[in-house]
Amino acid sequence: MKRVAVVGYGNIGRYAVQAVEAAPDLELAGVVRRQVAGALPPELREVQVVDDIQKLGRVDAALLCVPSRTVPDKAREVLELGINTVDSFDIHGEDLLRYRKEIDITAKEHGAVAVIAAGWDPGTDSVVRALLELMAPKGITFTNFGPGMSMGHSVAAKAVPGVKDALSMTIPAGAGRHRRQVYVELEPGADFQTVEANILADPYFNKDETFVYQVSCIKDLQDVGHGVLMERVGTSGRTANQQFKWEMRINNPALTAQIMTAAARASFRRQPGAYTLLEIPLIDCFSDDLDELVMRLV
Amino acid sequence: MKRVAVVGYGNIGRYAVQAVEAAPDLELAGVVRRQVAGALPPELREVQVVDDIQKLGRVDAALLCVPSRTVPDKAREVLELGINTVDSFDIHGEDLLRYRKEIDITAKEHGAVAVIAAGWDPGTDSVVRALLELMAPKGITFTNFGPGMSMGHSVAAKAVPGVKDALSMTIPAGAGRHRRQVYVELEPGADFQTVEANILADPYFNKDETFVYQVSCIKDLQDVGHGVLMERVGTSGRTANQQFKWEMRINNPALTAQIMTAAARASFRRQPGAYTLLEIPLIDCFSDDLDELVMRLV
Repeated sequence: MKRVAVVGYGNIGRYAVQAVEAAPDLELAGVVRRQVAGALPPELREVQVVDDIQKLGRVDAALLCVPSRTVPDKAREVLELGINTVDSFDIHGEDLLRYRKEIDITAKEHGAVAVIAAGWDPGTDSVVRALLELMAPKGITFTNFGPGMSMGHSVAAKAVPGVKDALSMTIPAGAGRHRRQVYVELEPGADFQTVEANILADPYFNKDETFVYQVSCIKDLQDVGHGVLMERVGTSGRTANQQFKWEMRINNPALTAQIMTAAARASFRRQPGAYTLLEIPLIDCFSDDLDELVMRLV
Repeated sequence: MKRVAVVGYGNIGRYAVQAVEAAPDLELAGVVRRQVAGALPPELREVQVVDDIQKLGRVDAALLCVPSRTVPDKAREVLELGINTVDSFDIHGEDLLRYRKEIDITAKEHGAVAVIAAGWDPGTDSVVRALLELMAPKGITFTNFGPGMSMGHSVAAKAVPGVKDALSMTIPAGAGRHRRQVYVELEPGADFQTVEANILADPYFNKDETFVYQVSCIKDLQDVGHGVLMERVGTSGRTANQQFKWEMRINNPALTAQIMTAAARASFRRQPGAYTLLEIPLIDCFSDDLDELVMRLV
């Protein structure tokens, strides 16, 4: 049985523990987090919790459930031990490309596999975008996120002076455009209109229609539900008006953790190097026998 | 430039010619069909049309646009020439499994690649089924087809005595169940009620709710529009109520032909053997540079 460690115990880490425990073919090697002393959350009582992955004995793959910005360093550190990594690095574009190149070299040097950007977007949505484009090469794919909380935008709003806590909702406005609804809990004495003006001027918000609301308690608004609607109308060969839709409404960290867990399986079947989900045959994310999978899925 | 031949010139073959011609990185080697003498359809005037693929010079891959039942023999014949094949073999289950095994051996013997069952179902829908299951391993996926014409059911209705021509529509009835609406044009003197009773008793129809209608001209009813709605509500880890939907409304042969064309590209990047789309990294269906694809799709 392959042994999988969960590195980081925030939102995604919690669900990653559940996903690994629910997988009949994987064994939870343990959880790596900074805080190991003191009272552990009750669900970790039967789990080995350490501050260094090397204390977990044999580990075949590590799910890196840490903030995207710290993923590259963490991945390097784990790969250097010859342990496969899976992450849900969620910064698209140049940053991802650079990370992919660098970590590919590290992984190859240490005979390990890194599956990167293996959440839902980037991740499974990327697979859907590829499907849409290969089915109808000409056309536009619109990815509409939400309604759901945006971590990045919430953090940006929280950084504005006078804001004690903040939550930014991404509201789909159609055709790939989004509206931001930012809920703020203010520090005593802070002026709402000043806070609002600062948020509206922030580069995270100044390109989208944005509304700011003052509330008394952010915690009461928190929900990890999220969703996406991807749409494409395109041309196959010379035939126009081919219409496609992909939609989901999901618990965000639970889905991310589940996809990462499936990607860990694929890591055991690849040659050393770094891979996005697009570069992996999906069948490698399953533990069943090939014939069984062909019968069930094809 | 890779040279691709289209084998068979029925519904899918016609659209396959268009899809290959529309692909900037592929060259149409020609069309293989039985009928080469006499008047060619106008769109084939500039195309090399032969009755034997060996008359086309170098061919790197052949799109087998022939009925599913004749696909295995045709694939073997082409693979034995060392030419890659792509088909949209659409019989699920044991037949597909047997075909995959046999053709895998032939392909390996001749150093060629066969991409099989590469239409939309099986094919891209199979990829979606895999995505759904890896995202929420527990749950039921419902595949609802239509409204659209079913070739298999139309042929079965046409075989009933007294039927001159027939068309069977697949109507989605929800949760993966389907209603059949069969339109028949009768031979002179045939009795509608006898025909109706025979159709209702046919194994193709006796498990589904089926309605038979008499019409004067089947040709006036024909349209190649089709669709699918796949739905899954499932559990990721221990989190229930994860909701997913995949929907499309498409020109059926145009989509099939486009997917086969994309699969031909993947055939050039695989080791000899047989592969379903699930066993191929989707990125191999594109001709663009990896960095460009990561930027655009991931």
